[in-house]
Amino acid sequence: MDKKTLHIIKVGGQIIDHPDVLSGFLDQFALLEGPKILVHGGGKLATRLAADLHIPQQMVEGRRITDKDTLNIVVMVYAGLINKQVVAQLQGKGCGAIGLCGADAGIIRARKRTHAAHDFGFVGDVASIDAGVLEGLLEQGLSPVIAPITHNGEGQLLNTNADTIAQEMAKAMSVHYHTVLIYSFEKAGVLLDTEDETSVIPSMNQAAYQTLKESGKIFAGMIPKLDNAFQALEAGVGRVVIGPAEQLQDLVAGSKGTSIVA
Amino acid sequence: MDKKTLHIIKVGGQIIDHPDVLSGFLDQFALLEGPKILVHGGGKLATRLAADLHIPQQMVEGRRITDKDTLNIVVMVYAGLINKQVVAQLQGKGCGAIGLCGADAGIIRARKRTHAAHDFGFVGDVASIDAGVLEGLLEQGLSPVIAPITHNGEGQLLNTNADTIAQEMAKAMSVHYHTVLIYSFEKAGVLLDTEDETSVIPSMNQAAYQTLKESGKIFAGMIPKLDNAFQALEAGVGRVVIGPAEQLQDLVAGSKGTSIVA
Repeated sequence: MDKKTLHIIKVGGQIIDHPDVLSGFLDQFALLEGPKILVHGGGKLATRLAADLHIPQQMVEGRRITDKDTLNIVVMVYAGLINKQVVAQLQGKGCGAIGLCGADAGIIRARKRTHAAHDFGFVGDVASIDAGVLEGLLEQGLSPVIAPITHNGEGQLLNTNADTIAQEMAKAMSVHYHTVLIYSFEKAGVLLDTEDETSVIPSMNQAAYQTLKESGKIFAGMIPKLDNAFQALEAGVGRVVIGPAEQLQDLVAGSKGTSIVA
Repeated sequence: MDKKTLHIIKVGGQIIDHPDVLSGFLDQFALLEGPKILVHGGGKLATRLAADLHIPQQMVEGRRITDKDTLNIVVMVYAGLINKQVVAQLQGKGCGAIGLCGADAGIIRARKRTHAAHDFGFVGDVASIDAGVLEGLLEQGLSPVIAPITHNGEGQLLNTNADTIAQEMAKAMSVHYHTVLIYSFEKAGVLLDTEDETSVIPSMNQAAYQTLKESGKIFAGMIPKLDNAFQALEAGVGRVVIGPAEQLQDLVAGSKGTSIVA
């Protein structure tokens, strides 16, 4: 029997911060047929709440340290406010959304990050995904909405990168489904000229990527996303698309954004 | 075929505020066999967070008004921090907990409360429970952990009383299960003398309750809980128990607390 197609869609923080754009994106997500999972980022609200509560944000090598107070804030904002507002909106649009963090139903287990020189605090790297439980929810007609919070399986919540969650989930779900992974954000896709939103590269394979990367034509901030995309394809994901959240339906159809192919 | 027994356990806010007591309670919840649902209250953290953020708490007739800022706080604290900390702990204790609010999977729809004289803000009264979705989760071996936040089905989150949620859920689930509803909190049960924790009434029917109530022997704060308990029995719930969270296993066995019988 052919595998069903599963769409796993990551939506970035900047979309979360704009209610009108988010609502339009959620309209399109609600209309998408078949099994689907939404992974959302954090947005600026956690930073604002930390400032309002006078909780100092410590940075090491450009990365935020997740101390105990900061962990509580990201759990409240990501797994609480943002997750539940998105779920309530999707429910209002007729989508059977169910909001979860990685601890719920044990779907994402992570390991606290260790580093020789620095302690990044309560930051988790994905260790395993329970694809069976997610399949059970999808088969019940539910659409998981995942907040970027995980757990270590021993009672500790951890802060985890949403892009990585989407990627690891897509890889794990590829055993059960033909999986399409979509990174949707505020950009038109992978651009040849970062100043020109019309310079989208419609499709890119590994060879083309290496050539562009070596010639310095890929924006540095995009490189980790693309490295991850190719790694996902190698691990069994069917297709990876990077493009604008406002045109989700076109990303699914493959007519907008950048399609990453093996 | 006989119905399976389902335990629906409400744990009160004062237990939530004491990590050691909560952990002992969760040990017992994790060990409980068969289908089970945990409904948790809020505790004092939301009030503290509102004070830290200088959000004034308005009261009318002894009830808190849930304005927009207060709603955001209770969603963050109840559906975010408390719910996910409880789930992570239960997962660590080997229980397949899945944390949900009423918007998730559309399990609890509520109506915004209307009142002739006052606007209580974003407060919801339970309108309907989706027992089928909850049964699907239970059949998957999952144990729902419910935060007292609901939605109106049109995108709006609402603040709802946890006791009422537990009661309405028990009534709705009685179609599918032999349902036992347990209100667990910091007291030994329904007391004949509120100053004497050894004066627990082990069992009470409607007639005994009326007699005790008329003679003024029931503590006023307990009357709404007891009225609700008898209403739940009339609506098909098999048994209602009120007693100490620290002795959950004994409450389930019926050897502690007060059993309310038809």
